[in-house]
Amino acid sequence: MTDIHNRHSHPIELRDATVTDPFWAAEQELVRTAVIPYQWNALNDNVPGAAPSYCMHNFKAAAAQNAERHEQGKAFVPPKYTFRGFEALPEDPANPDPDKFYGFVFQDTDFSKWIEAVGYSLTHHPDAELEATADAAIDIVCAAQLDNGYLDTYYILNGMDRHFTNLKDHHELYCFGHLVEGAVAYYEATGKRKLLDAACRFADYIDSRFGTEEGRLHGYPGHEIAEMALVKLAAVTGETRYADLAEYFVWQRGQQPLYFALEDRRRAEEDGRNYEPREQNYTYYQADKPVTEQTEALGHAVRAAYFYSGVADVARITGEAALLESCETLWRNIVDRKLYITGGIGATHMGEAFSFDYDLPNDTAYSESCAAIALAFFARRMLEIQPKSEYADVMESALYNTTLAGMALDGKSFFYVNPLEVVPEACHRDERKFHVKPVRQKWFGCACCPPNIARMVESVQQYAYTVADDASTLYVHLYMGGVVSAKLGGSDVSLEVRAGMPWNGAGAITVTLPSSDEGQVPESFALALRLPAWAGGESAADSIHATGEKDSRITRTTRDGYLYLTGTWRDGDVIDFDFPMPVRMIAANPLVREDAGKVAFIRGPLAYCAEGTDNGDNLHLLHADAETIAADPDSVKVNEITFHAQAAAQDERGLGEVEPVDLPMVTLTIPAWRESSQGAADKSLYALWQPAQRQPTEVTLIPYFAWANRGETEMTVFLRS
Amino acid sequence: MTDIHNRHSHPIELRDATVTDPFWAAEQELVRTAVIPYQWNALNDNVPGAAPSYCMHNFKAAAAQNAERHEQGKAFVPPKYTFRGFEALPEDPANPDPDKFYGFVFQDTDFSKWIEAVGYSLTHHPDAELEATADAAIDIVCAAQLDNGYLDTYYILNGMDRHFTNLKDHHELYCFGHLVEGAVAYYEATGKRKLLDAACRFADYIDSRFGTEEGRLHGYPGHEIAEMALVKLAAVTGETRYADLAEYFVWQRGQQPLYFALEDRRRAEEDGRNYEPREQNYTYYQADKPVTEQTEALGHAVRAAYFYSGVADVARITGEAALLESCETLWRNIVDRKLYITGGIGATHMGEAFSFDYDLPNDTAYSESCAAIALAFFARRMLEIQPKSEYADVMESALYNTTLAGMALDGKSFFYVNPLEVVPEACHRDERKFHVKPVRQKWFGCACCPPNIARMVESVQQYAYTVADDASTLYVHLYMGGVVSAKLGGSDVSLEVRAGMPWNGAGAITVTLPSSDEGQVPESFALALRLPAWAGGESAADSIHATGEKDSRITRTTRDGYLYLTGTWRDGDVIDFDFPMPVRMIAANPLVREDAGKVAFIRGPLAYCAEGTDNGDNLHLLHADAETIAADPDSVKVNEITFHAQAAAQDERGLGEVEPVDLPMVTLTIPAWRESSQGAADKSLYALWQPAQRQPTEVTLIPYFAWANRGETEMTVFLRS
Repeated sequence: MTDIHNRHSHPIELRDATVTDPFWAAEQELVRTAVIPYQWNALNDNVPGAAPSYCMHNFKAAAAQNAERHEQGKAFVPPKYTFRGFEALPEDPANPDPDKFYGFVFQDTDFSKWIEAVGYSLTHHPDAELEATADAAIDIVCAAQLDNGYLDTYYILNGMDRHFTNLKDHHELYCFGHLVEGAVAYYEATGKRKLLDAACRFADYIDSRFGTEEGRLHGYPGHEIAEMALVKLAAVTGETRYADLAEYFVWQRGQQPLYFALEDRRRAEEDGRNYEPREQNYTYYQADKPVTEQTEALGHAVRAAYFYSGVADVARITGEAALLESCETLWRNIVDRKLYITGGIGATHMGEAFSFDYDLPNDTAYSESCAAIALAFFARRMLEIQPKSEYADVMESALYNTTLAGMALDGKSFFYVNPLEVVPEACHRDERKFHVKPVRQKWFGCACCPPNIARMVESVQQYAYTVADDASTLYVHLYMGGVVSAKLGGSDVSLEVRAGMPWNGAGAITVTLPSSDEGQVPESFALALRLPAWAGGESAADSIHATGEKDSRITRTTRDGYLYLTGTWRDGDVIDFDFPMPVRMIAANPLVREDAGKVAFIRGPLAYCAEGTDNGDNLHLLHADAETIAADPDSVKVNEITFHAQAAAQDERGLGEVEPVDLPMVTLTIPAWRESSQGAADKSLYALWQPAQRQPTEVTLIPYFAWANRGETEMTVFLRS
Repeated sequence: MTDIHNRHSHPIELRDATVTDPFWAAEQELVRTAVIPYQWNALNDNVPGAAPSYCMHNFKAAAAQNAERHEQGKAFVPPKYTFRGFEALPEDPANPDPDKFYGFVFQDTDFSKWIEAVGYSLTHHPDAELEATADAAIDIVCAAQLDNGYLDTYYILNGMDRHFTNLKDHHELYCFGHLVEGAVAYYEATGKRKLLDAACRFADYIDSRFGTEEGRLHGYPGHEIAEMALVKLAAVTGETRYADLAEYFVWQRGQQPLYFALEDRRRAEEDGRNYEPREQNYTYYQADKPVTEQTEALGHAVRAAYFYSGVADVARITGEAALLESCETLWRNIVDRKLYITGGIGATHMGEAFSFDYDLPNDTAYSESCAAIALAFFARRMLEIQPKSEYADVMESALYNTTLAGMALDGKSFFYVNPLEVVPEACHRDERKFHVKPVRQKWFGCACCPPNIARMVESVQQYAYTVADDASTLYVHLYMGGVVSAKLGGSDVSLEVRAGMPWNGAGAITVTLPSSDEGQVPESFALALRLPAWAGGESAADSIHATGEKDSRITRTTRDGYLYLTGTWRDGDVIDFDFPMPVRMIAANPLVREDAGKVAFIRGPLAYCAEGTDNGDNLHLLHADAETIAADPDSVKVNEITFHAQAAAQDERGLGEVEPVDLPMVTLTIPAWRESSQGAADKSLYALWQPAQRQPTEVTLIPYFAWANRGETEMTVFLRS
């Protein structure tokens, strides 16, 4: 008997699910053919007009230094550490010193994120040339590793005498975490251990240096990710020490005395500076207090959501209730008070951080692409602990809206910041909005977002499915065309999924089982299908029908937003689903000041927006006719169109090339009215109030992820009602 | 025959008008009894808990150095210039070095602004003790002056080898301008020439160094004010050279090659730094192009409006049409596109600057108190050129709203920034709004606003009246109780004005003329009374009646918003006025995004606002019932009350003492409705739109100048409609 109450599950192996879904397959193809090659050029400083990364330069410099270190009969003099700035650039950009470190302190992660995306891509798209390129890169990276396992070129090149002395800001453990994630992905794709072994040696070194024991460093990462990465490394290698190290990092964070404060003092003393204790914003690092005392999502949003993901991982493997409770509290705070309707988080560019409860400005939003991805990480880990559809609803929104908005439809330019309202003139002329770009950029000096989108898109099927640890249940969290295989109830089960997402809610799942000729009698197992909130939540179960239900082999139970179809499955069984996908007119909670009197439109997982391209300037004068729409849902037209994108990307030389792309798209047309602004420029700034001159009109809405693909124009997600 | 077409006028002498008006007399009394003594303590570093000014410290140090310089038989070694930061502070605050300069580069102006306010105060309130204090301070200041006339302690103490090498940022000509304004005020009040002579010597030195001639510096002030000051100095001394220097500064500004760019290059070369030409934001300084090519008000708002005031002065005295045209163009741009309804300017804290057209955010507004004062300067100068009531309307709004809001009702704390919407939590937690303070502060390190308010309030009658240059007309721009005297039509005329402003529009002006016994036959002259826009503009003329009209001695003409009452006046003639003062519900131009769908309330010159104290939290959920108010003006109640203020001021030690004050006040009560937010904190962040639950209510509005006098609370000027 299948126990559906065993709540823990794990993602499927990437190789066990293909994506044939036209929507996601197209995104993966963009990443494979456009982003990954671009990224490789970027980290080798071969993109004309773009700021050099210096990433591979640094690894090569460190490898050369290592060779010198090992050379017989030559006394190697290690460099003595000097701080050369958070981002070090060559004096003459044309002639970087081959022995020096350049770029941001975390520049090594450019490689790690690239190799991670490469690993995912190779899993489904064997590519000997790409693999050879990756192997050669790995050789360089591994040649840079010190004998003790340390592998961060910033300190290797600038002076190891100061390594692990500025965990708060110098990203060593962040670089380590990304290295692990990349190494695991590449190992799982290719079976090649070289990079994985290097990651393990670095992990071993860190494990030998950190801990609560006397004589060890009582520190933890300034930018979290190592927690998640170590849990992954433990799972792949079977080494529980790595999971223990993750657990240590999670619990130690924010303990008194605050390690970052001690570190600040120590560095000042060593530099002979006066240590001036000052109000340090340790909440930026989620390091002001222990996680179990944190009740509000605060600080740098990517750091925060990476941390919460790591906490969830540790909660899952240790079963520590206090950690799970913290995760749930922080999740609730995000979802109930700090989440954009586009699945984005991080309302303020000051510290790229969470703002206070209900402070969700549209025009100055930060909503970093990486933060939406981090939120998806957190959500999937919560799903692994407890399959509740709310986690998947939020994950789906983060993926379909802000994550995808981060990349142009041609895959060649990117948003770091994902505002919900843009007036181009404000971006150009108002310094308060300089962080908001009205068109995507080719690349970034601090290039976190493009590779993060790449690794997410290339592994998106791991967000679609998890398998119960006892192999009793396969959870379908996202509906995505493709084939997924898993061992369920003792059998090798394969599901072929067809789905029309995100454009419609119809599809089918065909079950393939080993034939009974082979003597296998499949035991009972469950397929648990998420009931999306956008389809009505639990009532969406009525839209699902399994052939096995007719002869009572399969029974249904609804729990926490999942329909569990349990019983004895037969080869060829089919589950049909046809989720309703109504256009939903949404208002924000009245405590969200910035959305007061406004509505936004959602259909399926997609948030919609209005662009000036379709609707003219001054979008603030457009009103959705909320009463009409509420009274007559059919007043909203749903249009299946071909969307003609001409992404105008910003690079350092101005607006870059235009690459037209035609894509299927569903747009909406809503009844609306426009306030007259005729002659406004000639009128006085203030005048006696008069009722607005209402001109009936329609507003065309496009999916948010597709905005800014037709040149520079106004955009808004929320419309006045 | 009086020629009312002679358009130029000049302000009355300050001594020729008293203020007995309860409203303004109370403000002046606050400044005299609270601000001026506080300011003196501040500039002598005698305010416990406040940041020291170091102003008098610097003058003393410079005076001591001067004494050393003059000492017989001792070779004085001048200091060689080293840049010690834009604000230099002692290493040990308890023991500042008596020989060193501390504070901001413009710290000398603390004295100059104080002595200016003292001069104005002594004019009407002789005070031997204050005058003795001022004389002693002047002795110290004058002792600091170099033999060549130079008088800026920043360079005197830090090294004269670099004086006049950073006009852009080092404020020498700004300090000079304030010194002149202070010296003129003190001379006019007391007849004492010592400081005026010092100012003239400094002016002479500058005049000898600057100009278009070969071998002279082709520069101009980085922070304008010298232009206005020099015109004033020329008028007081009769030295046209000073006016010529002002004219030079106005025309030279922004000419190619840009002086500030040359200066930047020269300094870099002298320092042996590489000069890297970069995009300099010279618009910040209004120095990117010549004034006659400037069509948009841009850059630092105080600098800009001080500059425009100087341009207007030069336009008036030279009659140069191109300058007047520039003034009119820039005025139109401000008034039609960049002016807050509170008379404030400078929409962004980035550079304390004008933003782009129609960008007038309420919650992140800068609207510096000094900028409103600067706008009043500009407005009065435009009035001097051409009496048009629009100038006076704007000037009145700037004075009654933002200028007065800059000071608490107890005169003991100040706003630098004057937002139109405040949510205290945002000010505390959202770094984007850290410049917005929800309560006034005791003093500022950069203490420009409090003394600027002081000098404006103490000389406010000079904004109420101007006299035509041909003595044909006395213009009444502001209605303010008091007595004003002027030579008109050959006679000494005195007007006694009674007015109920800003609470009601009724009053009377009684004319006193020398008795005909004395053989004087008064010629015809005109009294020109402004017809306020808030009273209906030209139709307000119907509310004015002069006794002399009955027997046709006096005739009326309306022109440019002024009622000219012209003819043969008799002693005892009375002009009655009773301007309607309806509550006006105002909407902003539709192109102002931040005010879309909102209304504000004005009555007379006063802008009103809603505070949480009267209306509860979440002011964004309150709606003015615009339809009802428009249909039935009587639905708005006008309440004469006693306002109980308990200003909670912020000083460096937290919220300071509370000083209760009871003041007469007119508040408004408007019909309104409130959207329900019941249980909102427990509800989800996004939900299907539903019509708002409307709860009928009333909103209490108080004058904007009185906000934040009852503790920390929400505030908004614009309400949703």
